[in-house]
Amino acid sequence: MATAALSPATASLRLKPFSSTVRFLSLYNLHHHQPKTNKSIFQFITTPHHPLKLPNHFNRRCFSSVVTASVTSGEVVEKLKTESVGEFRKRLRIGDIKGGESEGLDKLGQTLTVRGWVRTLRVQSSVTFIEVNDGSCVSNMQCVIDSDAEGYDQVDNGLITTGASVCVEGVVVPSQGKKQKIELKISKLVTVGKSDPSFPIQKKKVTREFLRSKAHLRPRTNTFSAVARVRNALAYATHKFFQENGFVWVASPIITASDCEGAGEQFCVTTLIPTSKEVIDSQADAIPRTENGLIDWSQDFFEKPAFLTVSGQLNGETYATALTDVYTFGPTFRAENSNTSRHLAEFWMIEPELAFADLNDDMACATAYLQYVVKHVLENCKEDMDFFNNWIEKGIIDRLSDVVEKSFVRMTYTDAVELLLKSKKKFEFPVKWGCDLQSEHERYITEEAFNGCPVIITDYPKDIKAFYMRLNDDGKTVAAMDMLVPRVGELIGGSQREERLDYLEARLDELNLNKESFWWYLDLRRYGTVPHAGFGLGFERLVQFTTGIDNIRDTIPFPRAPGSAEF
Amino acid sequence: MATAALSPATASLRLKPFSSTVRFLSLYNLHHHQPKTNKSIFQFITTPHHPLKLPNHFNRRCFSSVVTASVTSGEVVEKLKTESVGEFRKRLRIGDIKGGESEGLDKLGQTLTVRGWVRTLRVQSSVTFIEVNDGSCVSNMQCVIDSDAEGYDQVDNGLITTGASVCVEGVVVPSQGKKQKIELKISKLVTVGKSDPSFPIQKKKVTREFLRSKAHLRPRTNTFSAVARVRNALAYATHKFFQENGFVWVASPIITASDCEGAGEQFCVTTLIPTSKEVIDSQADAIPRTENGLIDWSQDFFEKPAFLTVSGQLNGETYATALTDVYTFGPTFRAENSNTSRHLAEFWMIEPELAFADLNDDMACATAYLQYVVKHVLENCKEDMDFFNNWIEKGIIDRLSDVVEKSFVRMTYTDAVELLLKSKKKFEFPVKWGCDLQSEHERYITEEAFNGCPVIITDYPKDIKAFYMRLNDDGKTVAAMDMLVPRVGELIGGSQREERLDYLEARLDELNLNKESFWWYLDLRRYGTVPHAGFGLGFERLVQFTTGIDNIRDTIPFPRAPGSAEF
Repeated sequence: MATAALSPATASLRLKPFSSTVRFLSLYNLHHHQPKTNKSIFQFITTPHHPLKLPNHFNRRCFSSVVTASVTSGEVVEKLKTESVGEFRKRLRIGDIKGGESEGLDKLGQTLTVRGWVRTLRVQSSVTFIEVNDGSCVSNMQCVIDSDAEGYDQVDNGLITTGASVCVEGVVVPSQGKKQKIELKISKLVTVGKSDPSFPIQKKKVTREFLRSKAHLRPRTNTFSAVARVRNALAYATHKFFQENGFVWVASPIITASDCEGAGEQFCVTTLIPTSKEVIDSQADAIPRTENGLIDWSQDFFEKPAFLTVSGQLNGETYATALTDVYTFGPTFRAENSNTSRHLAEFWMIEPELAFADLNDDMACATAYLQYVVKHVLENCKEDMDFFNNWIEKGIIDRLSDVVEKSFVRMTYTDAVELLLKSKKKFEFPVKWGCDLQSEHERYITEEAFNGCPVIITDYPKDIKAFYMRLNDDGKTVAAMDMLVPRVGELIGGSQREERLDYLEARLDELNLNKESFWWYLDLRRYGTVPHAGFGLGFERLVQFTTGIDNIRDTIPFPRAPGSAEF
Repeated sequence: MATAALSPATASLRLKPFSSTVRFLSLYNLHHHQPKTNKSIFQFITTPHHPLKLPNHFNRRCFSSVVTASVTSGEVVEKLKTESVGEFRKRLRIGDIKGGESEGLDKLGQTLTVRGWVRTLRVQSSVTFIEVNDGSCVSNMQCVIDSDAEGYDQVDNGLITTGASVCVEGVVVPSQGKKQKIELKISKLVTVGKSDPSFPIQKKKVTREFLRSKAHLRPRTNTFSAVARVRNALAYATHKFFQENGFVWVASPIITASDCEGAGEQFCVTTLIPTSKEVIDSQADAIPRTENGLIDWSQDFFEKPAFLTVSGQLNGETYATALTDVYTFGPTFRAENSNTSRHLAEFWMIEPELAFADLNDDMACATAYLQYVVKHVLENCKEDMDFFNNWIEKGIIDRLSDVVEKSFVRMTYTDAVELLLKSKKKFEFPVKWGCDLQSEHERYITEEAFNGCPVIITDYPKDIKAFYMRLNDDGKTVAAMDMLVPRVGELIGGSQREERLDYLEARLDELNLNKESFWWYLDLRRYGTVPHAGFGLGFERLVQFTTGIDNIRDTIPFPRAPGSAEF
């Protein structure tokens, strides 16, 4: 704690907060409660463009110059001191330093600053290694510090422990270790925030189950930061794919009073129950009721029962039949009481909808989409994918490369049932025409029969599919398609929609669904109906598929499941 | 109805559905209930690369070749017929045809196909005009048809009405009208789906209020399709900005049992109330209760009270303190009973969080972000912005160009109060140091005092800001910032977060907030705390700001407000 960098701020530094000429940064305070300020931490950040010594404030990602009110109209304003806002720049990250083809060798000799969290400290007789990670890539920046470097006393004082945050300045030098090409020879070390010894993610191996109870800290592990980055890449690739193909992103509603799927597994959204703080002691009798003892929905926020959406598809169709090609990407919900490694109560769905399109277009789109996003991840998350290949699922890179390169296979449900019946495989659930395919059947088809190639099954019996799917000419099957992939089974489900008003109405009648509640959905067929098709993809299933992560609860930052809504 | 294209399918066309060699497309049936099939509609679609006559099936966006099971392992599979999935191609849209610099003149002489919805039909003595819109741009494709063209009888038969969907093939010719450079001389016209005469969006002017009750059809109007496209562009630009700057998109949870803001305006999410169909007749007494008449939360889905999130910020901080820079982009909720043109019960928020960053970085990021997305829209949605400029808000393009080009002004809250006090303006709410700034104050500052330039106000009194904002050295103000923009007032609110554990705990105590429920949030300060900052931006406010649309309910496809959760 005796370094200059950590010394208490002098009076002269106590200027106006956030003025552009003085920057400060409080440090985790070890001795007393008064915060200390430090104006140097940010000052030695170096971007790749300015590798060498720079004047103060120049090489920050944000810098601002003092400008007294240049934009004024009132006479009053002129007297007031205003400033303009600084420029924002992309920050130099460990991934940027080490991520290129040369793995950092192009940065040799440059003075750089790295800010991140200590993963490990190894004190050896002659030299000390600090592994720093900033979440930008799997690998750490190996930092080497000699005992005469500025700030070395923090090593002696026990500040540099796993979980502590640091800011280190140093020169890029070739590494003598085999795990990396370069390392940082520290000239200056600053502890930004120490880590309490109770830090739960120490180097000893922790289970993923344990980490789920530490969802706020698990992104500091290799596995979860890699999942977060690949998840991010999949999301961005999703937007890129659809945008490049002229689709418009549509926000389907989360809360809806439309009970269109007739599904019984929705969450109710209400303000009838006293909310927030009062909720713990909420009297059941306080819920407003009608004379006959029914819940009085007219007093609820939406004046009728409202639910969390299970799908944005029907809403998406309204926009597709105006803008031609749209997609949704938002959260959806199931109140199913299933505590499995494949289900979440809250998950993100991608639901494209294409007008003037049939099932062939739909399959082609789903295939092109999947190949695009997987390719994007293989190309842009190489280090993360190597990590998954080594530690999570051996061979995942080959499996995904196959998906990108191979032609997907398509076959009808009827043929798939024949295939299953003729196979010598014993299934837990027996197969016959008309039954829904179980996960074991789906995985047999894609993993065994077709050797890991994704398979699209089409034309399912109408009785096991949703009311809105287009009836085929055989009168028995509908223009549905499910894409099956290894490990996950069904990844994508889609269909051509029934665009014929009379067919759709007949189907609603057949299923005893209330036509009035579908008035707006039927309107789409009443006014300029068009053949259209779409599909839905559970985003977390896609993350599972792409990372090899077993449990779906490890693919989303804060998983929701029965009994689990922490954080 | 006598055109060849509309003639009933012959028996020979009734092949296996979706086989790759026969494509069909059912038409809205005018005479009887049997669907008709038509294999020609898709066959004459022409891409820009193949403007002239092409062999069948070649110039579709999806085409597939019959491939019998090339990927097989089991002996059974070989006997089954499978096919590979067709290629997906970007579709040629009216916006692509007319949107280039030459406004379509480069396509002269090409035979193209357009599919969309009829906006108007004008029958003149010598020639007939059909305006077709496919949602890809504001302007229609003007199509000209002579009485001897194939399918002209549909004009006579009254099929070509506003709202009907059509597929037209024709040659691009110079237009004699002044409103467009080119038009399509129709060689073939096919009605895909007729429009019932009750179609509510006829050419006569309809109010936006009326259109809110037709939220499923309003994207077929110029205003709402333009809003949808600009909204889409803003969303994509948001992702692009953060991705290009190394931020990771994080899905903050929608359902949460964490009541961290202590706000009383949350929606409760529950399965205690009988859901879906049964809900209409739900007995209030059916809600499980404990012995003392309290609601028995242990029987609820999450085994405790759960709510819809009001902000993803605290969750975002957990990822920022692992991955450095992150952002959320997802729905958030307020159960406030405010029926205004500025509030929604469900809206999308963008919440970036930057580690190793202070309020200056935060302001710089917010400024760069806003300038980036506005610039993106000005550059990529020119026609839509011209439309808004002409019909919604005169001068909006200049206003937005100013935002992109001008330096934003920053001043402290204290200075802002001084400015307001010294102004000669009469405000409804009087101003004094310590009061929250009202919309009238905010708009005076940005619109009048600074002449339309966005203004960032910093360092608000701690008592009017949230507990997590960093206390300034004066002990009275916090490192908060609000960005004020013309028309909207506060568009962005942000702060540097209190990263000092002892300060944060003291603040929670001061506000009588329960420290235990913040255990995970406090952990971030206990283990390697870092200075960090972030901001929140209501996406629909941004759409208002960028389009000039008055009512926030017209900026989101399906607005939710007290009493409104239709669709």
